[in-house]
Amino acid sequence: MAALPPDAAVEAAASSEPEEGELVTNRRVILKRYVTGCPTEEDMEVVVGTLRLVVLPGSAAIVVKNLYLSCDPYMRTRMSRHDQPSFVPDFVPGEVLDNWAVSKVMVSGHPDFKPGDLLCLLTGWEEYSLITNPKVYHKINHPEFPLSYYTGVLGVPGITAHAGLFEVAKAKKGEYVFVSAASGAVGQIVGQLAKVAGCYVVGSAGSDHKVNLLMTKFGFDDAFNYKKELDLDAALKRCFPEGIDVYFENVGGAMLEAVLRNMRPYGRIAVCGQVSQYNLQRPDGAPDLFQLVGKRLRMEGFLVGDYGGEYRQRFEEKMAGYLKEGKVVSVEDIAEGIEAAPAALVGLFSGRNIGKQVVAVARE
Amino acid sequence: MAALPPDAAVEAAASSEPEEGELVTNRRVILKRYVTGCPTEEDMEVVVGTLRLVVLPGSAAIVVKNLYLSCDPYMRTRMSRHDQPSFVPDFVPGEVLDNWAVSKVMVSGHPDFKPGDLLCLLTGWEEYSLITNPKVYHKINHPEFPLSYYTGVLGVPGITAHAGLFEVAKAKKGEYVFVSAASGAVGQIVGQLAKVAGCYVVGSAGSDHKVNLLMTKFGFDDAFNYKKELDLDAALKRCFPEGIDVYFENVGGAMLEAVLRNMRPYGRIAVCGQVSQYNLQRPDGAPDLFQLVGKRLRMEGFLVGDYGGEYRQRFEEKMAGYLKEGKVVSVEDIAEGIEAAPAALVGLFSGRNIGKQVVAVARE
Repeated sequence: MAALPPDAAVEAAASSEPEEGELVTNRRVILKRYVTGCPTEEDMEVVVGTLRLVVLPGSAAIVVKNLYLSCDPYMRTRMSRHDQPSFVPDFVPGEVLDNWAVSKVMVSGHPDFKPGDLLCLLTGWEEYSLITNPKVYHKINHPEFPLSYYTGVLGVPGITAHAGLFEVAKAKKGEYVFVSAASGAVGQIVGQLAKVAGCYVVGSAGSDHKVNLLMTKFGFDDAFNYKKELDLDAALKRCFPEGIDVYFENVGGAMLEAVLRNMRPYGRIAVCGQVSQYNLQRPDGAPDLFQLVGKRLRMEGFLVGDYGGEYRQRFEEKMAGYLKEGKVVSVEDIAEGIEAAPAALVGLFSGRNIGKQVVAVARE
Repeated sequence: MAALPPDAAVEAAASSEPEEGELVTNRRVILKRYVTGCPTEEDMEVVVGTLRLVVLPGSAAIVVKNLYLSCDPYMRTRMSRHDQPSFVPDFVPGEVLDNWAVSKVMVSGHPDFKPGDLLCLLTGWEEYSLITNPKVYHKINHPEFPLSYYTGVLGVPGITAHAGLFEVAKAKKGEYVFVSAASGAVGQIVGQLAKVAGCYVVGSAGSDHKVNLLMTKFGFDDAFNYKKELDLDAALKRCFPEGIDVYFENVGGAMLEAVLRNMRPYGRIAVCGQVSQYNLQRPDGAPDLFQLVGKRLRMEGFLVGDYGGEYRQRFEEKMAGYLKEGKVVSVEDIAEGIEAAPAALVGLFSGRNIGKQVVAVARE
């Protein structure tokens, strides 16, 4: 048989997609129970439901097909019940998890979207989502890159790295920068952006393989496997005989303790996350915060949500440029299929993932 | 006998002073041994020496008579040996302690000083000091106030309060401000300056008497005795139902833990000191620093030494104005005589002092 002409090929591919009005099966990841301690796959369940691909006439709702789900450590903090409201709502047992994802519009009642549009948005951990009031989303302006990059280097982790390093920690050329969880989604971008900015960059990670990745793939100046160091303080002194100007904090606990002892005067700590702490009932470590006084240190937390709008747009163009020039590369760990999502999320806390953890629910 | 004419009276008073070239007895407070845990009077010793009131011809040295010694909690940090250099040199066993004081020039080889000049400077805990190279000092521009004020409200504690509140924490009108160790040298000024700036101000202190002082003398909006609160978190929630915008941190430990839980989004913590921690081998408390992330908090340490020169001069004029207008008052706890100095210093750690602790070695 002769090859189909290009248009027909596109049509044939499209025809494998469900159509507007169709009832589709919809596998969803729900939280089974509030989590105490380390989350397990049994804390979640993949259930099968259905969804009709329609929006109410006159509504501004959309139905999206979720392609790539982002797995992020902060999701753990949403799996416990909080007495005080946290910065994001807790997940609810029996209900679907949600987080940032790359999705494709299937049906739209919204003037800004049409079927086939690709979006980066907050959506459910499910195959299809009905979003009645799409508010938090952004367009994908560089579809020439793998779409999954919009859950990582071109998405929220990328903006997080950029904002934390430059807006919060105000890293400058020639400074000594330390990044923990350095091969992860945010850490790998922090390190590479700091190198582009002319800093001396050291990262810590949890395996020799990851340490090797930091040195050979991401161009860090030095790196160490924190699980093999008997004395984190000594490891930092070895890597930073002059001390640390900027610490991009992803882990908390014993590492933060050791870092505080090794900060230089007027150093800055951008607190992005504290993954070592999320599974604890009570924080561990005993950071010597009096170090802040003697060295005039600044320690500042931030949320990427404060860096939207124009900041995000400028970031996307800048990062797309770096990717094209090869100044920044991305390493992703892609789990296939929504059934793999619970294990992918749980794996973040044992460091199973190599690079940004994504779940590919569908490829297009 | 007829009364002496005024000039002769002055001369008579002056003649009770030792003269240039004279050998005077000089009682000095030395550190006997490095301190572990809570300092005691036995860690220090008052020894008697002599000093000849001369400076080498051609030298720029001065000899001062020390009038008022400042007792400050940070001095405890200098009484232990540090492996890493701290922001101030450790005291040395067998040698005299030193700190800020108000002193009078007796003999001067320095072109900027003449006998009788009053100075605020770093000097030994002794009756007379030979200072070979006076560098860190400032003049006393408002001798109309009690001279001891230059160890407190008009001196280093005052500048500390002002810089921490306005330059570091950037307190603004209408904000909720919390101060710990609020009746102390720095805390009492922080609270009063925050009131002048239009903030809502709450302080904690360690006795009902001090709490009463905060409310009646310093004009705090609310105050509590932390030793009587079973639950610091509940105490802060009672005083700050809307949360805290600015925390002026003087104590660390359990109070800081509770404060972090009660900070409002975008809150600032100026870290001035952590008196509850100085006697510990290892920091206590388990502050939940992940709070920094969700609430975008900034926690910043500072040293008053960074606020010298013009800043200090502007501060002195501003504070002199407040004192004259009655907008700020000072409460001091004056121990008499150099023999009382060790007990006065030790008393800071049990909260024995009511207000700024000063040692009056001599009145003029």
